[in-house]
Amino acid sequence: MVDLTDLMDDEVFRAFASYATIIISKMMLMSATTAFYRMTRKVFANPEDCATLGKGENAKKYLRTDDRVERVRRAHLNDLENIVPFLGIGLLYSLSGPDPSTAILHFRVFVGARIYHTIAYLTPLPQPNRALGFLVGYAVTLSMAYRLLKSRLYL
Amino acid sequence: MVDLTDLMDDEVFRAFASYATIIISKMMLMSATTAFYRMTRKVFANPEDCATLGKGENAKKYLRTDDRVERVRRAHLNDLENIVPFLGIGLLYSLSGPDPSTAILHFRVFVGARIYHTIAYLTPLPQPNRALGFLVGYAVTLSMAYRLLKSRLYL
Amino acid sequence: MVDLTDLMDDEVFRAFASYATIIISKMMLMSATTAFYRMTRKVFANPEDCATLGKGENAKKYLRTDDRVERVRRAHLNDLENIVPFLGIGLLYSLSGPDPSTAILHFRVFVGARIYHTIAYLTPLPQPNRALGFLVGYAVTLSMAYRLLKSRLYL
Repeated sequence: MVDLTDLMDDEVFRAFASYATIIISKMMLMSATTAFYRMTRKVFANPEDCATLGKGENAKKYLRTDDRVERVRRAHLNDLENIVPFLGIGLLYSLSGPDPSTAILHFRVFVGARIYHTIAYLTPLPQPNRALGFLVGYAVTLSMAYRLLKSRLYL
Repeated sequence: MVDLTDLMDDEVFRAFASYATIIISKMMLMSATTAFYRMTRKVFANPEDCATLGKGENAKKYLRTDDRVERVRRAHLNDLENIVPFLGIGLLYSLSGPDPSTAILHFRVFVGARIYHTIAYLTPLPQPNRALGFLVGYAVTLSMAYRLLKSRLYL
Repeated sequence: MVDLTDLMDDEVFRAFASYATIIISKMMLMSATTAFYRMTRKVFANPEDCATLGKGENAKKYLRTDDRVERVRRAHLNDLENIVPFLGIGLLYSLSGPDPSTAILHFRVFVGARIYHTIAYLTPLPQPNRALGFLVGYAVTLSMAYRLLKSRLYL
């Protein structure tokens, strides 16, 4: 049997595992935030979710949208759209034998940029704060994609 | 050339591959379910999708939303939001040398919880059935993240 | 320390890395396309995004939806729903020791089908062009899932 823990002895891969786990956990917080606002603001998407709040028409009034909830949902979807590419490209890039300090710099900047993006989205901070968080994360992912394809392209 | 099939000789990794493939396939079923309801209920999001159902204003009436379709779409998005973290954290956790029986228990409970979540969402079952499915899957993913970071954190 | 670059010596894994990076980059283009249409058509989802376009009620009129923007967003979400399964199942399938020419054929057809899907969605081309792109990509992913489970199932 192969000793898989060898993979975790690799500095870059282990750093990727740590940063990826941190940013995925941050993304998961968005689910909890949505649930928190839905319950404290009584704003639901499904009839069964507000069944205990009243009967018939009385419950139906809670099936509505709310600016705060929609904002968190947009931030969550933006996370998905940007963190999925980071996970896919970042994993493959980590396995392509990059320079450790360059690779770890990419991971750190990405994680910082996405945390900043979330803060800017939920506060909300005036633009271009959120745009900056988005663009930095986007550029980091493209930089990893470029380095990976330049050194390892095989079609 | 490295013999990659070695990786699949690892008990945990092979179990992760099986459970991940099963839960991703379940998620893909949501696309088929959405398409099924869109076609049987004649509810479309794009003008070109209902062009064969009539001309001009006659076709436009099929560009609408429907409770059943929206419910499947919400279940699908919730799957994405929860299965992406499971795939990312679960893969890295599988490679971090966990105890096999603990790891496989995590995978089994997650897959069971998400299948239960889908059943509860689409039936729909009264709450807290769906909330329970969501929370169990969420807790399993966080437990893997915690174990991974505790043993392998490298920033 | 294990030499991870060995993994990239494997023909199938290296091909997967290349095709996955290409299709993820294509998906990331959808974010840029959405931003492009939002700015050129002045269609925003957040008040802070159009704060520089005017004050008070004057800015609020830009908080609207637009057919073109919604179409790109639907294409982007469809990408997420289909590319995430490809990344997860494709990675595991690549590591399961498949026949190289079969595996690479799967990757090529998937990437081609998803690029065709995007062209069909954004042009838009009449149906069944988009449906064909979707179905081919869907079938390729299920074929990889079937091959993986048939050879490596471990529950």
